[in-house]
Amino acid sequence: MSKERVYLYDSTLRDGGQTQGVDFSVPDKIAIARALDRLGIDYIEGGWPGANPTDDAFFGAPPKLSRARLSAFGMTRRPGRSAANDPGLMAVLNSKAKVVCLVGKTWDFHVTTALNCTLDENLEMIADSLKLAGERAEEVMFDCEHFFDGYKANPGFALACARTAYESGARWIVLCDTNGGTLPHEVEAIVAEVAKHVPGDRLGIHCHNDTENAVANSLAAVRAGARQIQGTLNGLGERCGNANLVSLIPSLTLKMGFDVGIGEDGLRNLRDVSRMLDERLNRQPNRQQAYVGESAFAHKGGLHVSAIEKDPRSYEHVDPSLIGNARHVVVSDQAGRSNILARFREIGLEIDPKDPKVNSLVETVKEREFEGYAYDGAEASFELLARRMLDHVPQFFTLQRFRVMDERRFNARGQLVTEAEATVSVAIGNAVRYEVALGNGPVNAFDNALRKALVGDYPGVEHLQLVDYKVRILTPNDGTRAITRVMIESEDADGERWTTVGVSPNILNASVDALSDSITYKLMRAGVRPAA
Amino acid sequence: MSKERVYLYDSTLRDGGQTQGVDFSVPDKIAIARALDRLGIDYIEGGWPGANPTDDAFFGAPPKLSRARLSAFGMTRRPGRSAANDPGLMAVLNSKAKVVCLVGKTWDFHVTTALNCTLDENLEMIADSLKLAGERAEEVMFDCEHFFDGYKANPGFALACARTAYESGARWIVLCDTNGGTLPHEVEAIVAEVAKHVPGDRLGIHCHNDTENAVANSLAAVRAGARQIQGTLNGLGERCGNANLVSLIPSLTLKMGFDVGIGEDGLRNLRDVSRMLDERLNRQPNRQQAYVGESAFAHKGGLHVSAIEKDPRSYEHVDPSLIGNARHVVVSDQAGRSNILARFREIGLEIDPKDPKVNSLVETVKEREFEGYAYDGAEASFELLARRMLDHVPQFFTLQRFRVMDERRFNARGQLVTEAEATVSVAIGNAVRYEVALGNGPVNAFDNALRKALVGDYPGVEHLQLVDYKVRILTPNDGTRAITRVMIESEDADGERWTTVGVSPNILNASVDALSDSITYKLMRAGVRPAA
Repeated sequence: MSKERVYLYDSTLRDGGQTQGVDFSVPDKIAIARALDRLGIDYIEGGWPGANPTDDAFFGAPPKLSRARLSAFGMTRRPGRSAANDPGLMAVLNSKAKVVCLVGKTWDFHVTTALNCTLDENLEMIADSLKLAGERAEEVMFDCEHFFDGYKANPGFALACARTAYESGARWIVLCDTNGGTLPHEVEAIVAEVAKHVPGDRLGIHCHNDTENAVANSLAAVRAGARQIQGTLNGLGERCGNANLVSLIPSLTLKMGFDVGIGEDGLRNLRDVSRMLDERLNRQPNRQQAYVGESAFAHKGGLHVSAIEKDPRSYEHVDPSLIGNARHVVVSDQAGRSNILARFREIGLEIDPKDPKVNSLVETVKEREFEGYAYDGAEASFELLARRMLDHVPQFFTLQRFRVMDERRFNARGQLVTEAEATVSVAIGNAVRYEVALGNGPVNAFDNALRKALVGDYPGVEHLQLVDYKVRILTPNDGTRAITRVMIESEDADGERWTTVGVSPNILNASVDALSDSITYKLMRAGVRPAA
Repeated sequence: MSKERVYLYDSTLRDGGQTQGVDFSVPDKIAIARALDRLGIDYIEGGWPGANPTDDAFFGAPPKLSRARLSAFGMTRRPGRSAANDPGLMAVLNSKAKVVCLVGKTWDFHVTTALNCTLDENLEMIADSLKLAGERAEEVMFDCEHFFDGYKANPGFALACARTAYESGARWIVLCDTNGGTLPHEVEAIVAEVAKHVPGDRLGIHCHNDTENAVANSLAAVRAGARQIQGTLNGLGERCGNANLVSLIPSLTLKMGFDVGIGEDGLRNLRDVSRMLDERLNRQPNRQQAYVGESAFAHKGGLHVSAIEKDPRSYEHVDPSLIGNARHVVVSDQAGRSNILARFREIGLEIDPKDPKVNSLVETVKEREFEGYAYDGAEASFELLARRMLDHVPQFFTLQRFRVMDERRFNARGQLVTEAEATVSVAIGNAVRYEVALGNGPVNAFDNALRKALVGDYPGVEHLQLVDYKVRILTPNDGTRAITRVMIESEDADGERWTTVGVSPNILNASVDALSDSITYKLMRAGVRPAA
């Protein structure tokens, strides 16, 4: 038996752009649209033509999509003029998008206070706008703004708006919980009522997360008959965000038996698409995100870890590989011995579990995490620590001293210039290298000087790249005297990545330690012999 | 008519401690327990006596609570020994806690694979443990581990476990979705079935957020009759977290009409308690958190802002002040004129909306946000920018140049030492102050030198404190050459706080700009006259 279909409509590029702190460029929008298309999303709302220069540029030269349909968002015509004479509406209809999604009022209170027109004129605005849109676009849908608040206040009018949209040719009538205050049992009951007047396979749902129920509300609507879901990647969106498609997709497919059109390959891409958005936004991915977060299948408690090793079903609700995620055994203060031993197997370190050094490593990890180190995310630093205590790590170089100078002053031409300069003294075997370099900041200057000192003996460091540099203040109440934790992610020429950590009251000291660890890790993994 | 009561059980200190990256100290636990008590939570689970030294210390000298009941968590006895001979169980029962919550298996698969005992012995373990606990503690409850997976696999056995706990004197039988994979409609159906065998007012619910439905699942259980909810502050917890009490409380009270025992004053504390936990954990608060997040009532789109000014109900699902939150008009790239004008009213800047300078300010904000500034969170920097363009900001001082030196070397005794030294040259009126200071990092050294230069003319800067210092890397792919954004939160002697922002490829430069802005803002607000 074929599975029932639920359609997905992504609004990351439009409603997601309303998020505080988010501001998409045109290349951002193109890259995200392509990723959504590869994932297999049915509809991609690209923006609002006519509302701002970015959206105009995007629709002016839209990305080629292989299967998703690009949708342009807009508003129904204003009161008191014809649809064809409304410049806002016409900007939307004149875009090249084949799908048009128009939003209109369905709450009587908004019609009378915000639009200052009669309820009847509002119905005409919906009908006129959708009919004209139907002549211009291949597919038209209607977003019922404030539908649930509207239904509670005046069910007859809210239903009349939905019904008018249906009769005016809208393929989808999308019920929006615009203020996000409706609870799941209300959504389920109201959608079930609407489905008596508009067929369920023409109904969509659009939820916001203001009560932390956007995902549950979307599922409740589907259970009541709706067959289209509007949402965003990672729940991006104004205020508390929109319904998170990344959470909805696995529940719909793996747990509720629906087909959302993305197939098993799409599902396996889900984690990567979620991360890609965070990278575009320079956002720290949410470790705790359902299904795709780094911690979503992480096991910290020692008891869980031993049970998981017996049978993963005992503490995992789905197989993480289905959504491109992986199980993760966490090394941390709460770590029991079984966690530490599981990590050893992951990094290929063979050690007798009864070796007393294992206990002493557990103690050291606890002490260092107490000081502010975080081995949760810095696997390379953990491996160096473990190998130094249990095995052996070659001493490739010894940083004897460094000095960084950072100066802002006016130059001879009267321009304000900032200069960072670093000198390092590094012992390599029997030789000492003393080098100086400039940089556009103190950490960059140090990095340049250290590589300059090492590259003669270890040519591989030239291809090592720093891809992320994170600073975390651990005792914010101490202001600029706070303890600083620096995590550095590095990449080699083959694309392998690893993360190291440094902790100090001095941000440069912490950076220097993390950088030194990163280089040592790379040389060790590459099997390089220390210079004599 | 009096409202129906739902009881709240907070597990922040126990299940919340399983969160990746979280590690509570004893003072943390005490401070959080006190905050929960003030909020009005019914039960506070303090930890697991006997499991680790922190929890032993906490229960050894528990905080005095005014109304909450402290609960100790533990496991039912192991197979093959009596309850009184189980050292793990006895450690829990010997703690001073008046409430004891024991967890036991209710999924047949776990009984046979993890415990390796018969289903009947598991029932005896539940009965024996709860009966003994009932003799020692004032109140006993039972956490049904994996109840929902267990019910799906073998409903008869799962029900027998719950029923045994009920008959053995447990005040609450708590149904746990331990792996977090159950969906709301399943929770509602299964709880309704259980309520036929155990009275609803003896049933609790314990959910995890692995499908982003922990809040909805808890509400579904309440609708099916359960009257106790276990959860954590801010949804802290292993993997994707536990059910978030901070989201549940307002929905239960403001929307579903339940009494959760915290009253209106408790509710108004909700935002502060949520923030207090983040501060204890040195975590960035989640801006998008339902009800209490900084963005939860933020309005960015220009259209929304004009509607909100007409009538808040139009875009707000509840009054933010009820939970101690506030409306927030966001200044950002998407800002329409109405946002900017609303912000002016907030800061008390009177300006004719038609003044062409307003448009030029909107343009400048857009440009600077493009460069990496974020005025969303740095209200003081926004005010300085606006007043510089539209009004006037006194020039209290001019930073002519600075130099920061940061050195790590071995001292005469062979110890590795790091030293940071800053010199600044500052023009104040007609005088030039040239000062030097040390610090335990480069930013701290600069901060010390600048204050030293200013304090003679502006004594107020002595009482100015930096309370938070945040660094964000904006182009992570450029590694150590990335653009850095520094946000500094300052506090004066009266407890007033403000935030400023600085952006530069050079982290020190960015810090220096944010620090200078902070001091200028303070002096301006205090009405200080610039020194001549």
